Amino acid sequence: MIEPGDRVLIVGEGREFFVRAGPGTHSSDKGQLDLSQLVGASAGDILTSHSGAQFTVRLPRPTDFFTYGKRSGAPMLPKDIGLVIAYTGMNHNDSVLDAGTGSGIAAIYFGGVAKSVKTIEIRPEFSALAQKNIREAKLSNVEAVAADFLTADGHFDVVHLDMQIQPEHVTHAFSLLNSGGYLACYTPFLEQMAIVVDAASGQFSEIHTHELIEREMTRSKRGTRPSTSVCHSGYITIARK
Amino acid sequence: MIEPGDRVLIVGEGREFFVRAGPGTHSSDKGQLDLSQLVGASAGDILTSHSGAQFTVRLPRPTDFFTYGKRSGAPMLPKDIGLVIAYTGMNHNDSVLDAGTGSGIAAIYFGGVAKSVKTIEIRPEFSALAQKNIREAKLSNVEAVAADFLTADGHFDVVHLDMQIQPEHVTHAFSLLNSGGYLACYTPFLEQMAIVVDAASGQFSEIHTHELIEREMTRSKRGTRPSTSVCHSGYITIARK
Amino acid sequence: MIEPGDRVLIVGEGREFFVRAGPGTHSSDKGQLDLSQLVGASAGDILTSHSGAQFTVRLPRPTDFFTYGKRSGAPMLPKDIGLVIAYTGMNHNDSVLDAGTGSGIAAIYFGGVAKSVKTIEIRPEFSALAQKNIREAKLSNVEAVAADFLTADGHFDVVHLDMQIQPEHVTHAFSLLNSGGYLACYTPFLEQMAIVVDAASGQFSEIHTHELIEREMTRSKRGTRPSTSVCHSGYITIARK
Amino acid sequence: MIEPGDRVLIVGEGREFFVRAGPGTHSSDKGQLDLSQLVGASAGDILTSHSGAQFTVRLPRPTDFFTYGKRSGAPMLPKDIGLVIAYTGMNHNDSVLDAGTGSGIAAIYFGGVAKSVKTIEIRPEFSALAQKNIREAKLSNVEAVAADFLTADGHFDVVHLDMQIQPEHVTHAFSLLNSGGYLACYTPFLEQMAIVVDAASGQFSEIHTHELIEREMTRSKRGTRPSTSVCHSGYITIARK
Repeated sequence: MIEPGDRVLIVGEGREFFVRAGPGTHSSDKGQLDLSQLVGASAGDILTSHSGAQFTVRLPRPTDFFTYGKRSGAPMLPKDIGLVIAYTGMNHNDSVLDAGTGSGIAAIYFGGVAKSVKTIEIRPEFSALAQKNIREAKLSNVEAVAADFLTADGHFDVVHLDMQIQPEHVTHAFSLLNSGGYLACYTPFLEQMAIVVDAASGQFSEIHTHELIEREMTRSKRGTRPSTSVCHSGYITIARK
Repeated sequence: MIEPGDRVLIVGEGREFFVRAGPGTHSSDKGQLDLSQLVGASAGDILTSHSGAQFTVRLPRPTDFFTYGKRSGAPMLPKDIGLVIAYTGMNHNDSVLDAGTGSGIAAIYFGGVAKSVKTIEIRPEFSALAQKNIREAKLSNVEAVAADFLTADGHFDVVHLDMQIQPEHVTHAFSLLNSGGYLACYTPFLEQMAIVVDAASGQFSEIHTHELIEREMTRSKRGTRPSTSVCHSGYITIARK
Repeated sequence: MIEPGDRVLIVGEGREFFVRAGPGTHSSDKGQLDLSQLVGASAGDILTSHSGAQFTVRLPRPTDFFTYGKRSGAPMLPKDIGLVIAYTGMNHNDSVLDAGTGSGIAAIYFGGVAKSVKTIEIRPEFSALAQKNIREAKLSNVEAVAADFLTADGHFDVVHLDMQIQPEHVTHAFSLLNSGGYLACYTPFLEQMAIVVDAASGQFSEIHTHELIEREMTRSKRGTRPSTSVCHSGYITIARK
Repeated sequence: MIEPGDRVLIVGEGREFFVRAGPGTHSSDKGQLDLSQLVGASAGDILTSHSGAQFTVRLPRPTDFFTYGKRSGAPMLPKDIGLVIAYTGMNHNDSVLDAGTGSGIAAIYFGGVAKSVKTIEIRPEFSALAQKNIREAKLSNVEAVAADFLTADGHFDVVHLDMQIQPEHVTHAFSLLNSGGYLACYTPFLEQMAIVVDAASGQFSEIHTHELIEREMTRSKRGTRPSTSVCHSGYITIARK
């Protein structure tokens, strides 16, 4: 049941709004929506605008936070977040440490998968914004901390680094991981990838660097073809303790 | 704590064995291992072979079931499983329907992420093998059923199809999904992808077909370069209700 | 030696101009250039503007006609033109038939390689524009004809089709080719590629469809990485008689 | 007209043989072929084996030398040779310098395109083998020299380097090029590519590094899909003087 302050998607009439349940209204070209009616509503309920347009109530999913979450920079792309989840086998038994919170989008995806997520960000203003996004995603198992990754302690099944990675970060990650756990490092540049691979070699096993080139296929009356643009983002190195 | 019959990884001395805790021994070139000692042990414990070699006890992760699970055919690759998880935003609140169980590998990954997974496979012998894999992964939230997808009922947040997909399957998936939920269809061939996209158009919104081309980067004394082979697997169409 | 009416590149001071030798001037922010001085000049000569800026005289290469040639639509990309040249082994002994002249860019590249090129375009206004480009490239071995490809006759070592291809075009190409010669078909859409492959099967041997995904690598102070966009254009089917 | 010692392709009955015209026979499961009958024959003539099987006579094309030429190592792939031809606009007016002859395959392709090619190889035994391949390709405009590239002099429109490239090689290439000419450097490893780009910056303009990822599309009764393997070879940096 939706509570006051909850983020809600209202969808219909070819429109989609990311609003907050509670006092106030949302004005649209399909009429005004009374947001207080969302309190107590459930997913799938119908909200009617004052001009009679009907919208369906939705609880936002991680994909919606990727679209609507506040950003402090470019977040990791879903394809790369998916690769980290799949190649680490991240699951509901896992304690995850995520360093380089950024806008918190990866932490929101991980929080929906793992038992608990601790996300660390060295820039307090980025951490504060991420905390807001995480709170709106209603993830009580994600803790956001403004700190230096090198000060982190504890035991984790997965450590994910999306930051300027130096060899000491890789070594520190090794010390935090349970046996059989995975390190996942996202690096946009090749030089950073080389630092990670070189630092991991010797300590970690099963070190592999992956690159995902994603294409969208388009299908129109003229025919089927790949989109003329293709997306690259970065390299992801996975290593196992 | 490890129980009799549980799958366990024992790792050390450059070796890795996927064994079953309980009566019996595992013979290796590093000496014989007494598997009954695994019962009651925990992750990280040390198991010593009769010749003195030491191995670490690990609880297998989904990635290990991808490697060691029994197969009835080629399973979906982790890159594609990750894409489905990320592009549907699959999470611990979700009921997932997975049709085309195959060896059950995707169901094992999804079971580690979602609240509950129902996986349907029309070939009873495939379903039986998948059930064995799922049981070994200790996923009590995954139910494997030998049935035709068109007979499935209930309400789901994500429907995943990895089978010979016809338009009626796409329409049936629509009827099973909650508002805002996602359909994910894996199709190796372009003609099948076209069937899915055409059937989804009109019913679903946010229809996108993705292709992931994965490359591994190799780093040796000679230098850094992409692996000379690159992996293609299939097309994944994501559509939202 | 440059003759009146010849196309010339003048390059210098961070500028590049594609001009015509002969009467008249070219105005630029680096001063006015007297184009009549180009007549009789040679590649590498220096042209000085009235304000004293110095420019080097260059004879344009096919790459410059790709950049500066007049266009009636999107020409084939150099990567694809190169693939056709390499996979057909196009060389100075070859008679080439090119159908679907478009702006004539491919014909200009082929004309620089083959003994003779006949390029056919069904739309007279496209053929006229292409003839202008070809004349400016000073290729006396390229003949541009406004006609339907199905009316073409003669014997060729390479037939290149960049047009709406139907099965009868593939069959006609077979009849025009010398033994051991190659057909190269450029098709942006998968459905067209399938038509070509199906029509070629049975008549031709060594049928292969290629796709080139091109990426540019960028190198800056921040590091080295692939450009975040990647180029797809179309499928090229090569078949041998 | 075929002369004694010429390389000839004989094709038919689902077989293909790369033979030498002149005294002797070629034995096959389709009967013995009298190779002396090839002398004086022309492309398209029919050669009949002693058991009555009929074969067509073909003059080999560069693509056939890629397949049948003797190799001293892995030659550049046609896709990359095509990229060099297209991005330099190589044509029948050009003097080309090719350093790192290897097996001479690139020189054979270039020799079919350019006015003249000088190909330099520091290892005499490689140069000798390449000379044999070039002679068999009947390219009188290609000169193969066993020497160090740094000793090369003259003026060229295109310089192509496929060797261990150091900054002095890039600088030397600049000194050999005509204004408006192109340098093309093939480097399998990223570290070498960085050396080339850094050395070219400042001297050359229009510096671009390209990577071609090639996929073959397969079409069978089951459907159409990309081949599951994809080819990477190296990076090609093009720079203009």
